[in-house]
Amino acid sequence: MAVNIPQKKDLLNAAGRIANKIHNTPILTSEYLNKRFNTQLFFKCENFQKAGAFKSRGAVNAVFSLTSVEASKGVATHSSGNHAQALARAARLRNIPAYIVMPENAPQVKVAAVKAYGGIITFCKPMLKAREQTLREVLSETGAIEIHPYDNFQVVSGQATAAMEIFNKISPDLILVPVGGGGLLSGTALAAHYFLSRTEVIACEPKEADDARRSFLAGRIIPSVNPDTIADGLLTSLGVLPFEIIKKYVKDIVTVEEESIKAAMRIIYERMKIVVEPSAAVPLAAVLEEKVDLKGKKAAVILSGGNIDLDKINQYI
Amino acid sequence: MAVNIPQKKDLLNAAGRIANKIHNTPILTSEYLNKRFNTQLFFKCENFQKAGAFKSRGAVNAVFSLTSVEASKGVATHSSGNHAQALARAARLRNIPAYIVMPENAPQVKVAAVKAYGGIITFCKPMLKAREQTLREVLSETGAIEIHPYDNFQVVSGQATAAMEIFNKISPDLILVPVGGGGLLSGTALAAHYFLSRTEVIACEPKEADDARRSFLAGRIIPSVNPDTIADGLLTSLGVLPFEIIKKYVKDIVTVEEESIKAAMRIIYERMKIVVEPSAAVPLAAVLEEKVDLKGKKAAVILSGGNIDLDKINQYI
Repeated sequence: MAVNIPQKKDLLNAAGRIANKIHNTPILTSEYLNKRFNTQLFFKCENFQKAGAFKSRGAVNAVFSLTSVEASKGVATHSSGNHAQALARAARLRNIPAYIVMPENAPQVKVAAVKAYGGIITFCKPMLKAREQTLREVLSETGAIEIHPYDNFQVVSGQATAAMEIFNKISPDLILVPVGGGGLLSGTALAAHYFLSRTEVIACEPKEADDARRSFLAGRIIPSVNPDTIADGLLTSLGVLPFEIIKKYVKDIVTVEEESIKAAMRIIYERMKIVVEPSAAVPLAAVLEEKVDLKGKKAAVILSGGNIDLDKINQYI
Repeated sequence: MAVNIPQKKDLLNAAGRIANKIHNTPILTSEYLNKRFNTQLFFKCENFQKAGAFKSRGAVNAVFSLTSVEASKGVATHSSGNHAQALARAARLRNIPAYIVMPENAPQVKVAAVKAYGGIITFCKPMLKAREQTLREVLSETGAIEIHPYDNFQVVSGQATAAMEIFNKISPDLILVPVGGGGLLSGTALAAHYFLSRTEVIACEPKEADDARRSFLAGRIIPSVNPDTIADGLLTSLGVLPFEIIKKYVKDIVTVEEESIKAAMRIIYERMKIVVEPSAAVPLAAVLEEKVDLKGKKAAVILSGGNIDLDKINQYI
């Protein structure tokens, strides 16, 4: 089956569609890190994004791409993470319901965040099958449209806008991006391909959840089985659409140790004085492990999000 | 004895002197907080300042105000906090030695930070008398000039520049500032007096270290005795020069509970996604306790610093 890959115009449309509904987030630098690694690092701060993560880009783009008829019965997804909050917020902006299927063991802080954005939650057993089955039931009862967290044309197009904003300010030699389901990675790869094709896109992944790297090497999607990493945003397997793009336009996928993720978290908190979630620290972990040659180069790093359970923060740093 | 208070020209000179040696830090806003308190809050992010706190302003101004002869033998202070790092950094910028007297029980992270900036440390017993005595010895052995953390004309002038930067961007009705020794507070009060005199300056202080409020009410400096607060930057007693200014130009000093400081810390981390130290959260704690009437007003809040021992962060939030 041929997969429909977003074109340049789709990315430009996404950027226009979401411009006044998300933040054009700041890009920070760290003298300390630049000196230490003899490089120029530019951190795109999606932790400051609406709802605390890049996910707002794709969710807003997907929700506002719907026709009035399509949108009329609302949107739905299963997610216990940042996509749930982002979709609930995007739906509220459009004044339509968002039905969110969440596992009954989801952290209270995530449940509260979705509710605060007006999301309508249906709880289910924490297994993937139960989540999918419950979502099917919700879709059929409500007539809502499913907005998948990453295996969705408009979501991928929306995630591309983070890199587009980077290119409007700097021309990096490399972009380092964390990879989970592949939405941000594939969007970033498309943005580089269409707007600054000399920029190499490098994906960074926890070694304990290295399905993307294994899939990349094998040329087919290898599902994630019992991944065990503190980077809880990167547990999912690659989506079909993201994988088609990743195969074509991503230069490499490197993996990092858990200890490096913690060390990277600590550097970001101590030196840059900003709050990020563990998934966002994975690219800097790759820098710490010297998995990428940065000497004398300009490298952009997407800090993907800042939603962290503060009660557990000492497990992460 | 008449105290020599910095004039408008001294503040302008300070701003010019330090401009290319410190950050003009960003001002952040929070939709969540503005809605919750029906106000407009503007957070001046001195946690992003060089060496992690506003202290760099005063330290750089003091060090670069010295004549070549005065500076030739270096500078000295006793401090276990942000002034120590800031002074070490400022001295390194001028290529002169910084002698820092620190208590032998100072946190390892603070000692390491001072060393990283090239500070020459002399350890002493943790009592104030021992610190002062050791500093006197260091001064007499080295011929260095003492740069007091707050009871210093050029330090106060330098601290005033944070508020001056605020006034260049917005015209707040109020400024909320934490108070310890009074350097930031008195500098802010002078800046308001000279540049936007309708702005009311409100000091915020932990109830468990309320010597500034008691001094303010009594009209004379009442030393801090066994203060016990997580806001470790606010333990010191008021300085003579700051107090003269505070008496004249500060509208009020309000106090807050420890639990409110923790709650404010959590809001800043969770909602604004930035790292601050407990002292910096004290003004927002005053907002949470509704100690200041902000309805319909514009209020600037100085987030004074971001140097926190991450190993202890769960004690603070």
